[in-house]
Formats: sequence, C-alpha cells, structure tokens
Amino acid sequence: MAENTAGLRGITAGETALCTVGQAGTGLTYRGYDIHDLAQHAEFEEVAHLLLHGHLPTSSELRAYRERLQSLRALPEALRAVLEQIPANAHPMDVMRTGCSMLGNLETEADFSEQDWHIDRMLATFPAIITYWYRYSHDGVRIDTDSDEASIGGHFLRLLHGESPDPMHVQVMHASLILYAEHEFNASTFTARTCASTLSDIHSCITGAIGTLRGPLHGGANEAAMAMIEPWQTPDEAERELLGMLERKDKIMGFGHAVYRKSDPRNAIIKEWSRKLAEQVGDSRLYPVSERVEAVMAREKGLFCNADFFHASAYHFMGIPTPLFTPIFVMSRLSGWAAHVKEQRANNRIIRPSADYTGPELQTWVPIEERG
Amino acid sequence: MAENTAGLRGITAGETALCTVGQAGTGLTYRGYDIHDLAQHAEFEEVAHLLLHGHLPTSSELRAYRERLQSLRALPEALRAVLEQIPANAHPMDVMRTGCSMLGNLETEADFSEQDWHIDRMLATFPAIITYWYRYSHDGVRIDTDSDEASIGGHFLRLLHGESPDPMHVQVMHASLILYAEHEFNASTFTARTCASTLSDIHSCITGAIGTLRGPLHGGANEAAMAMIEPWQTPDEAERELLGMLERKDKIMGFGHAVYRKSDPRNAIIKEWSRKLAEQVGDSRLYPVSERVEAVMAREKGLFCNADFFHASAYHFMGIPTPLFTPIFVMSRLSGWAAHVKEQRANNRIIRPSADYTGPELQTWVPIEERG
Repeated sequence: MAENTAGLRGITAGETALCTVGQAGTGLTYRGYDIHDLAQHAEFEEVAHLLLHGHLPTSSELRAYRERLQSLRALPEALRAVLEQIPANAHPMDVMRTGCSMLGNLETEADFSEQDWHIDRMLATFPAIITYWYRYSHDGVRIDTDSDEASIGGHFLRLLHGESPDPMHVQVMHASLILYAEHEFNASTFTARTCASTLSDIHSCITGAIGTLRGPLHGGANEAAMAMIEPWQTPDEAERELLGMLERKDKIMGFGHAVYRKSDPRNAIIKEWSRKLAEQVGDSRLYPVSERVEAVMAREKGLFCNADFFHASAYHFMGIPTPLFTPIFVMSRLSGWAAHVKEQRANNRIIRPSADYTGPELQTWVPIEERG
Repeated sequence: MAENTAGLRGITAGETALCTVGQAGTGLTYRGYDIHDLAQHAEFEEVAHLLLHGHLPTSSELRAYRERLQSLRALPEALRAVLEQIPANAHPMDVMRTGCSMLGNLETEADFSEQDWHIDRMLATFPAIITYWYRYSHDGVRIDTDSDEASIGGHFLRLLHGESPDPMHVQVMHASLILYAEHEFNASTFTARTCASTLSDIHSCITGAIGTLRGPLHGGANEAAMAMIEPWQTPDEAERELLGMLERKDKIMGFGHAVYRKSDPRNAIIKEWSRKLAEQVGDSRLYPVSERVEAVMAREKGLFCNADFFHASAYHFMGIPTPLFTPIFVMSRLSGWAAHVKEQRANNRIIRPSADYTGPELQTWVPIEERG
C-alpha cells in the first residue's frame, strides 16, 4: 500500500454540502457560513437547524424548533432504569453510547421518513442522559429531566447544577456547541456515514459515532488539556513543567491540527469566552496559566491552540466536571453527525473499501493432532 | 468526485493479514487457510483462535481456550437488569448493540493489554445476551446463562431451547459460525477499524460494528431470504411467485455478491448442511423450495446463492426464530471484527478521509430578523 493512503489521508470518500475545513473564510464553514459569524451571532439551535434542514431559520421557525426540542426532553422510564444500572466509575462516553443505544430499543426508527423526529429527540434527551446518570450515580439523586430553559446548553447546565444558569454561561454554551457541531469527514462522522451506508437505523449510526469520538486521538483532548493544566499554580510553574514535558517528548493535548496549518479558527472564539469567564469568577490562575502554555507552545514548537485547549478552562469556570467535557462534544456534534447521515441516505452507496493483503500464502490443512 | 470512488470501491484503506476474498483457493481464506478446509475440519473456536492469535491451536491450546471461554459465560447482574428493560418488540440487533455497550460500562477496557480478555468475554457472553433477552421478553423466563456445552454454537442452542442440542446441530453451528467469521474490509469491519483508529476501547469498536451490520444492505439477508421462502408451499408455487417478483423488479435477497463473480464459496457448504437437516427433520417443502429458487435465479438472472440463502432454511430446521438469524452473524463475526481491531491497533493511523465539497459558496451573514 502506498504509504500516503494509510488512514485514507487525502482520499476522497464522498461528497458533502455541509462543511469546508481549511478552504474558505477564516477556515471553517457550515453550509457556506463562516464559523466566526455563526459563533458570534447565532444560537446553537439555529446552527443545528442550518445543518439539519439546510437553511438558517426565520424567527418563527427558530421559535417552533426550540419548542419542539423542549417538548421532547423527558427520558423514558426504561432508559432511566438502565442509566441507574451504570456505576459511578463508568466512562461517561460509555454512558452516552449506551443511553443512545437503549433509546433505539424503546423508540426504534421504523423507516427513514421518521429520521428528523428521532434526531430532534436525541438533541433533546442527550443532556438528560448524561446528567441523570451523573447525578444518580454520584449524588444518589433522581433529577427531574424537564426544565424550562430555552436552549440545549442552558438545559444541560440546569440539570447538572440544579439551578438556572448564569445568562453568560448560556451564551458560552451556545458558542461552544456551535464550534464543535461539525467538522467534515472526521473519524466519528465517517463512522456514522459508514454505518448509514448499510441503511442501518439512526441510533446505530449515532451510537457508533459516539464510540469513535471516545478515542483519545479524537474527542478527549479538552479533558486531557484540563488534566495537564489543573495542577499548575502559576504561569512560571506551567512554563517549567511544560518545558520538562516537551523535553521528555510527552504528548501535549489541545495543540496543532491535522488539517489547519497556521491556526484553528475556533480558538480565538473560545479563548475570548474563557477570558471573560475568568474575569467573572475572579480567576487569577487557570487563565494566565493557559495563556502561558499557549505562548510557550508557539515559541518552542510553532504550534497553535486548537478548539480544545481553551475549552478546558472555559468549561471549568462554569463548574462542569472534567469527565463531562467529551459528552458535551457529543451533544454538539450530534447535529453534524445526523446531518451527514441524512446526506449519506439521500445519495447512498455502501462504504466498502479494499485492503492490501499482507498475510501468508495458501496453507495446507494440518489436522489438529499433527500440529506442533 | 470520480464516480468509481463512491463507497471507496476499489480504494485501498489499509493492510490486513487476516483474509483474502476472491483471490486464492476456492475464493475465501482466513490467514491463508481455505474456507472449505476450515468449515469441513475445524470447530469455530479453532477458527476464532486462528483469527485472533495468528495460528491454529494445538489440541491442548484448543482445550484451554474452550475452557477459558466456558468460564466467562455468566452475565453480570446489571447487564441482566438492562436486558429486562428491553421490550419484546425491540430489534434483536438493537439488543445486541445495547448489551455489548452496557458490558463496556461494567467491565471497561482500561488499556490495550486487556484486549484479549475482553474479546474472550464477549465471545462467551454474546449467546447469553440475545437468548436471555429473548426468553425473558417473550416467555417471561429468567434463564440460567451457564451451560456445560463445550462450544459457543452449542451453548447458544442450549440457552435458546432449554435442552442439550442434537449433535448434528452443534456441527452445523460450527460450520455456520466459521463461514460468517471474517470477510476483509466489509462495512461493519471497516467501522470497527475506524473506531479503533481513534484508540477507542474494544466495546466501542464492536458496538459500532454491530450497528453497521444491522443495515439491510449488510447483515439482514438471511432473515430476508427466510421471509421470502417461508410462505411458499411447493417448488412450482415458489417458481411462479419468484418470476412475478423478478418481473416487478423486487429485490431478491441472498443472491450475488459485490466481490465474488461466479459463485460464493460458502454456499456449497451451508447448502449441504441444509440438505442434511431437511432429511433429519423430514422436510419436503422448504429445502425443495430453496433448490428451485436457486435454479430459477441461475436460469433467469445468472445469479448464484451467496452465504445467506441456504442459511435461512438451515437455521429454520434447527428451530431458530428468524429474528435471531442476524445476532448469530454477530456471535461469529465478532471474531473477525476483534482480530481487525487488534491489527489496526498494532499499526495505527487515524482513519480520516477527505470529502468533495458540493455546498454553497461563502455566505454573508443575515441577522435573524432579516431572514425571509
């Protein structure tokens, strides 16, 4: 196999009208809209509507869409019973994967004409799936999974903390969910499309994508960034420790990107929110530490922060436990995955590549008693 | 995009030492061994060992392997509780997907040094996952998920029927599980490898593969074949009805193959078992009907039976309910999927192809109140 086709890098695996990476605008567009415009001006539900239905909604369309999503928030009793069986030390991405899969048993997509309903239902229930399990397994509390929060991000914070979220935190959640919503043929999206290409159901596609996002080379970078910076008390300590890590060639998460070459267009947006949140909570440690890490990585390695690095401090300032960072990624990317499934279904050919064979030649059968 | 790269047909996506399709021997080899030799002489556990550990086991290795698998059969209590929450009308592949995912919550793969243990555990528990749910939801019975049957196929039949299986049926299960065990970079296997390429855990990889196999273009063909032939009372009626279906251009499942051109090497093997089983149960309807369908498809369309067609009657003669056909495929293919995950992990690059963009040019942002 030619070395450069490993991982299908640079190989076209299909068409999409959803996203460009590194081509136009500041480097990331959803259906032609620049990520900066979307993250500055839109709500997440607006962007989900754009991805899933092809156009930005009017005011009345957005209102109707929000109301529909709000009406679909309650978890089925059997799903709650399943979540209660999952121990507190489980991996939160395993909880998301199992919750999504179980939902598919209870509300099975009978045919593709139902796809939008099931997608809305997942958008509406994923915040409750993770928080119901988290609060039950950690605090022994059976939370009410309904809330009157208008947005998915606000609903998540409300269920997690048990109180109405700060308005700025709702804004940050909108921006964050928008930044993570879509990113072309990344590994989890490609999994969703491969699953869709056998004409499987929507829950199978999303369950597979969640499992793929779980891998540390894909979805876990903001958690890993948080784990790295959390112990550092001052920018100088951060610099010292980081230089040591670089010398030992430790992997530093949250920097560089497979496609972007000079910067990740998502970084400036979440960095600015992290700065504002630091100001709000009176932080004088984590944000300056993060800034120093950014400067040292640029100076020493020529590497820039990707979307994940300042997400770590931003989520932390909003009181979100680190293990829930990647499940938030799921709540967001669900919109992109589902849009790709719809696109694959609309123009499908089963995804079935070839392999280069590197194994033994044809073997002569040896009866078991003669094997040595 | 060039028309011929759709679905990555003919595009090399990686290397494998596990399997050739349409290249050597009678057309299908596992690590160099012809499928005819394997299905005639080996037990399924021997073939799983070959795929997963690289060589056919000696007698003592096989004995130890069987004993290890037998010792891992009991389902955790929390997994049984989850299966009891799944209604009788659920899709059995959704049950398998959820059961596998839930197992990952209870027994999480902490690092890849544990992979073989988790693979054995899945091989050992999958028969019980499907039969525990099936018997509980359909008959209200909580079955004992242990048995002293030596083989995975025998264990499955025992749990399903509540009695020790006929020795010939155990042989048929060996052959059937061997035939379905591995087939290179098919869609479900490729899903497992894409998931593995982010360094995700083994349960995520297998859960994603199950969801992909669920699609009617992939795993459901033997169920569809059964549904087609079941109502036909005589070969003449079958021929009449089939000709009508062909005239209406209905899709006929169980015939032809994306890679094999003249015949599927697996067909002769399962067809012969179906004939023997028909003789055993005194069938004078389903087997002659199946033979006639084969003849008519060859005459009218030049199409041959693939692995799935005679599996329908064979499973039916052993008293296996049609909805459990594809879960048996899972019990078998699990060995191939897991071997591919091990192979991907041993020489990994994240699978991340490109897409051809077909969407709109860069758009100017329009505030929501100005959208029409």
